[in-house]
Amino acid sequence: MTQIEDAKSGKITREMACVALDERIAPEILRKRIASGEIVIVTRRKCKPLGIGKGLRTKVNVNLGTSSVVVDPDAEIRKAMIAVEHGADTISDLSMGSDIDEIRRAISYAVSVPLTTVPIYQTTAEKGSFHKIDQDDLIRIIQKQVQEGVSSVVIHAGFTLDTLTSLKKASRTMGMVSKGGSFTAAWMIAHKKENPFLERYDEILEMLRRRDVVLSLGNAMRSGCVHDLSDKPQLSEIQRNAELARRANDVGVQTIIEGMGGHVPVKEIVAYVKYHKKIAGNRPLFVSGPLPTDIAVGYDHIAACVGASIASGAGADYLCAITPSEHLALPNIDHIREGTIAFRIAAHIGDSMKYGLSDRDLNLARMRRHRDWEGQFKFALEGEKARQIHSSGDTCTMCGDFCALKIMEQYLGH
Amino acid sequence: MTQIEDAKSGKITREMACVALDERIAPEILRKRIASGEIVIVTRRKCKPLGIGKGLRTKVNVNLGTSSVVVDPDAEIRKAMIAVEHGADTISDLSMGSDIDEIRRAISYAVSVPLTTVPIYQTTAEKGSFHKIDQDDLIRIIQKQVQEGVSSVVIHAGFTLDTLTSLKKASRTMGMVSKGGSFTAAWMIAHKKENPFLERYDEILEMLRRRDVVLSLGNAMRSGCVHDLSDKPQLSEIQRNAELARRANDVGVQTIIEGMGGHVPVKEIVAYVKYHKKIAGNRPLFVSGPLPTDIAVGYDHIAACVGASIASGAGADYLCAITPSEHLALPNIDHIREGTIAFRIAAHIGDSMKYGLSDRDLNLARMRRHRDWEGQFKFALEGEKARQIHSSGDTCTMCGDFCALKIMEQYLGH
Repeated sequence: MTQIEDAKSGKITREMACVALDERIAPEILRKRIASGEIVIVTRRKCKPLGIGKGLRTKVNVNLGTSSVVVDPDAEIRKAMIAVEHGADTISDLSMGSDIDEIRRAISYAVSVPLTTVPIYQTTAEKGSFHKIDQDDLIRIIQKQVQEGVSSVVIHAGFTLDTLTSLKKASRTMGMVSKGGSFTAAWMIAHKKENPFLERYDEILEMLRRRDVVLSLGNAMRSGCVHDLSDKPQLSEIQRNAELARRANDVGVQTIIEGMGGHVPVKEIVAYVKYHKKIAGNRPLFVSGPLPTDIAVGYDHIAACVGASIASGAGADYLCAITPSEHLALPNIDHIREGTIAFRIAAHIGDSMKYGLSDRDLNLARMRRHRDWEGQFKFALEGEKARQIHSSGDTCTMCGDFCALKIMEQYLGH
Repeated sequence: MTQIEDAKSGKITREMACVALDERIAPEILRKRIASGEIVIVTRRKCKPLGIGKGLRTKVNVNLGTSSVVVDPDAEIRKAMIAVEHGADTISDLSMGSDIDEIRRAISYAVSVPLTTVPIYQTTAEKGSFHKIDQDDLIRIIQKQVQEGVSSVVIHAGFTLDTLTSLKKASRTMGMVSKGGSFTAAWMIAHKKENPFLERYDEILEMLRRRDVVLSLGNAMRSGCVHDLSDKPQLSEIQRNAELARRANDVGVQTIIEGMGGHVPVKEIVAYVKYHKKIAGNRPLFVSGPLPTDIAVGYDHIAACVGASIASGAGADYLCAITPSEHLALPNIDHIREGTIAFRIAAHIGDSMKYGLSDRDLNLARMRRHRDWEGQFKFALEGEKARQIHSSGDTCTMCGDFCALKIMEQYLGH
């Protein structure tokens, strides 16, 4: 039985009890939301179950993996470890170079968080081109990854040949920027066939259901720059994905919907998230970024932190971290760390909008008030970094002898 | 004649013409807004006039200067140069250590942007303690800095002994965190006298008017953590500063009001900015941060970028950059650079909320679409950083042979 099947039948599983405890939510409320598809539980062997969705802490995913031109499997494993060390809730292995099975297995041993894959990546990499892929290859790779025990797989099933025709007509600057989406679309055009994931959807759902692997419905039509507005292909994909999520839930498959992401003017983020959540029956919404500007190249993690803070505050449940190397190169270990931290900040700010201010902020302020440096490092998101910057002494070197807190302590008895 | 005096008399000065051209605003609209106090022009010798206020691009100030315990005048000069190189619109020299006159002069030679000071810093540093200061010392230092040609000075005139009594009663975790505010308050309590800037306000205004130095009304009562809500002392300071700004404008002194700043829950930022602008008759609003969380220590520039993006989008005109070393140490050169860049991003995002998307974003997207790397670096906020991260080649190493843009070019004819 999958979590959603159990939830529908009224059963509170061990996984639900664990998530309920972690998130301080009543198990019965959690169960109901899993049954209605508003919350999913992702997990895998030797990994603590993780809840994503309505009323739960905003989660952060970190993408990594080899590319066809940069292959260093050890570096990818170190990236996974660094990301988890700095608070990544999940990892996605997007490897397309070297022995992909081997890298995925190594990452899955190295970290104890849920692991997501995009099966069309491995299929395309192994065949060398989408020309040579047939539907059975796709099914075979999904099957292999599912049986191996990944937590979640991404498929781009939300568009058809008709959507591609309307994409061709759309007046976009950036066209389609989703990699998985572009492989799927290119295959469809080259083979003059419908979306393979859509054609084999029931079969894929049955594979996922058997192992309770969470389905993640990819976002192929997202905008690739802030000037590319929500258009027909994008809206059609949102609606199709919402419908596909209902179908998946109906047959017992837990489902996350990827939405928005990419590049969105900051003014439109809140409305977009609310619209998406409404259309999708409040199912878990996964967003990448969004970037509210295109000119922060090299600092996209900071610009995306702004977009992601607002998006999660408006209801997005699950954020995909953007690194400083976005649009430029495969991220190195430092980039992964910086991206993870920026997104942990975004998730925390988003949660303060969703759920109110946290005690952790108050605890840190109290330690700061009393110039208890160790206490501040303890409650800080990145205590070690703070410790590195702080110079020893009772006050910080910015104010030295002229610390406002010390002065006010003396004069106001604060 | 000061800019506001000229504006009131209907004259469009050379400085106004220059700002109007820079900001693509009609000179007559600019003149009216200067006359009504909604815009100020800050400048100094050999420095291009800079407009701050309604309808103009959001500006970024960077604080630097020696402290009583870290004194390296050369480093402060390098910090000023780095900040300006990365887009700081103004510099504030907050030096409290070594030969403060000498450092200020060196900085003012090294960069060609407006320079702000907080005269009570130098007064306190030179006397060694506020106990030994008298009102005349304060007036003398203001006079010296003004005659030397600084662009703007900050005074904390917005509170009285009564405000301090209500601050003592307020249930704050952090008390008062403004350094200039704490010096002023400590002096008032120690000497059992009223706010010295308030008592000598007319005299100070007359000094500023003679040189057209812009008055910046400091924000002593800001909250020092997100849990410290807007309270009586804070609201009283906002109202008093608004009244003081009116008085200054009436006698021909251009005025900026520092507001909010510090630490503000993200949910409240928009309402706070709008309230502040309304109370202050839409005068230029300068905000530091605000930080929407307290736990991002070591990464406060990123958290503050979120707060500052939202604040500037809501109407704040002028942002004070926060660096990674905020709350921890005197910033080093790297911290100054990172803080400046994060705030340039915030100002740009804020402007996209105020004025709509920029052509620069569109130009960058077009270059990206065509994989014109040099073109992207040209339109990027930090082209050199982007160039460093980018590895050579037609695509980035993240996707390598499997670039979505290339694939869609081939298959969709995009």
